[in-house]
Amino acid sequence: MKELESFRVNPDLLKQFCAEVFEKLGLSDIQANITADQLVWADLMGIGSHGVTRIGIYARRIQAGLVNIKPDIKPVKETSSVAVLDGDNGLGQVVGVRAVELAIEKANKYGVGVVGVRNNNHFGCAGYYALKAIENDMVGIVMSNAPSTMAPWGARVPYLGTNPIAFGVPTKEFPPILLDMATSIVARGKIILSAKEGKAIPEGWAVDPEGEFTTDPELALKGAVLPFGGPKGSGIAIMIDILSGILSGAAFGPHIGSLYDDFSRPQDVGNFMIVFNISDFCPVDEFKERIEKMREEIKSLPRAKGVEEIMLPGEIEFRNYMENRRSGIALSPEVIKELKEVGESVSVKFSL
Amino acid sequence: MKELESFRVNPDLLKQFCAEVFEKLGLSDIQANITADQLVWADLMGIGSHGVTRIGIYARRIQAGLVNIKPDIKPVKETSSVAVLDGDNGLGQVVGVRAVELAIEKANKYGVGVVGVRNNNHFGCAGYYALKAIENDMVGIVMSNAPSTMAPWGARVPYLGTNPIAFGVPTKEFPPILLDMATSIVARGKIILSAKEGKAIPEGWAVDPEGEFTTDPELALKGAVLPFGGPKGSGIAIMIDILSGILSGAAFGPHIGSLYDDFSRPQDVGNFMIVFNISDFCPVDEFKERIEKMREEIKSLPRAKGVEEIMLPGEIEFRNYMENRRSGIALSPEVIKELKEVGESVSVKFSL
Repeated sequence: MKELESFRVNPDLLKQFCAEVFEKLGLSDIQANITADQLVWADLMGIGSHGVTRIGIYARRIQAGLVNIKPDIKPVKETSSVAVLDGDNGLGQVVGVRAVELAIEKANKYGVGVVGVRNNNHFGCAGYYALKAIENDMVGIVMSNAPSTMAPWGARVPYLGTNPIAFGVPTKEFPPILLDMATSIVARGKIILSAKEGKAIPEGWAVDPEGEFTTDPELALKGAVLPFGGPKGSGIAIMIDILSGILSGAAFGPHIGSLYDDFSRPQDVGNFMIVFNISDFCPVDEFKERIEKMREEIKSLPRAKGVEEIMLPGEIEFRNYMENRRSGIALSPEVIKELKEVGESVSVKFSL
Repeated sequence: MKELESFRVNPDLLKQFCAEVFEKLGLSDIQANITADQLVWADLMGIGSHGVTRIGIYARRIQAGLVNIKPDIKPVKETSSVAVLDGDNGLGQVVGVRAVELAIEKANKYGVGVVGVRNNNHFGCAGYYALKAIENDMVGIVMSNAPSTMAPWGARVPYLGTNPIAFGVPTKEFPPILLDMATSIVARGKIILSAKEGKAIPEGWAVDPEGEFTTDPELALKGAVLPFGGPKGSGIAIMIDILSGILSGAAFGPHIGSLYDDFSRPQDVGNFMIVFNISDFCPVDEFKERIEKMREEIKSLPRAKGVEEIMLPGEIEFRNYMENRRSGIALSPEVIKELKEVGESVSVKFSL
């Protein structure tokens, strides 16, 4: 088994495998490719918790009829700059890309585009959608609510999700600035991966069902993860739920269906995306010059003890991206086993 | 001196005193009243660090000719939903109120209003401007950058400000939801107040100029405060500076003039305000019903150890508000001394 631990696969072939699986599950060619691209992108960025390891659960939900493979995604409310998009219970990535494209279109015309999304499913890394804004020389903010796993400040049981927020900024030089974070101390996906790999989690990440700190990922998944930064992070997570869930007309708090544990109904996840067209604020070149100045200044600051290099948001992930494009994506034996199983269930052979 | 420690003043008389001081400093009646209202509101909310204790420094900067008392505040770039407002170096509160009013007007017409502000000064509590959105049945996000006092994650010297963000949500029942937070572990205003009152600060809030933790507020003010929530809070603070400073065309990072320490130039603070018109997303009544449901559910969750009541963002502050309206605002002897001095400098007697 030893050599399997560092097994690296070609990202393009991995994407092709994923797309084939999704097509066999009944998704259109376009939907399958969007979803495969988003998942492999997460693995390229080194965010394995949100990468191809999610294919298994997506497939099971599609096979159980809980995800609409032919969704009619359309705005149910719309002004020039704002839209509420009904995802029609489509796969999260498919709906997410449609939403950010609509926000970009509106930003292009009116300076800002805001799209709230209801009736969506788990859409993976929020950063992927913010990157679409970056690619259009725009600044993007992408939020999502998520199934209840996190205790609000002052409580000891879950109510909020680990509601992520991403913030993307185009730059003159590679890499762009891309903040992509859960509002929990740590992404719940990392606890799921630790559980799959049988590894303990650090103290302070989560409490067990009795409200006591635990290092056992299985108990943590049954208990509650905690918000980052105490009451402030809890407040940010509430903000994300109010915008993504309550304002967009999706479910919120504990009313969102669990991705893994609730096979009785669709998830009804909500998203909220805001895209700003830079050129309606200032010349794009000037903006990028100023960003480069900020980057150079921050990176050359005197460092805290034990810090080798000051990193801007997304910098580590884009380094992973370049390295993983070159050397392939390292998949654990557990994830490979998962991929083989899901492939077999739809007669697509995993042989990378 | 003992009785002075609990000296409570009538908020309306305090506001009148402040407005008179500002009028004597050359501000118009309207400008003076806006600024007085904003500062006294902060004291009513129990945020003394951002209340009337700031009048002294505002007055000194006006007297030194560093703030424009007759600003020509106008959009320098504008689309239907977006504007960049040049504050023309007016007093922060005056420019801030104009900015949020413009964002509200745009949101009313187009569903969302976004206003970036350049050439502004310290505008006090961000929550005050978000409250204006609330009063119009809108959801508001208000951000500002601030003079460099906070070390980005990985650095040991200041670069960022304690860049605050406020998020306001109208509700069916009092109080509204109002998150209003600095992105530092603690608002620098609290360290300033501790220094004025000669009190030690808790370990972990700040580092001294050598990068070591300190409990001495004077050393902390010379060193750096730290972002809340480690790299995530640091990322949020960078996001706020990019939107408020770089995108809006204001100064950013260490290029913002210090309120207290730099009398050689205006501050050039930047703000960024986003206002969402609820009725363009969903019926306002429905929105408010759902918010009440969330509030009731969160408040009735099992509590963490040592927690008497789970509080939503702004709940403590609005309780302070009601109590301080009833009983008067408690001012420390140091703040009263300050007010007397600034009053004397413009021949307005402090006799509350």
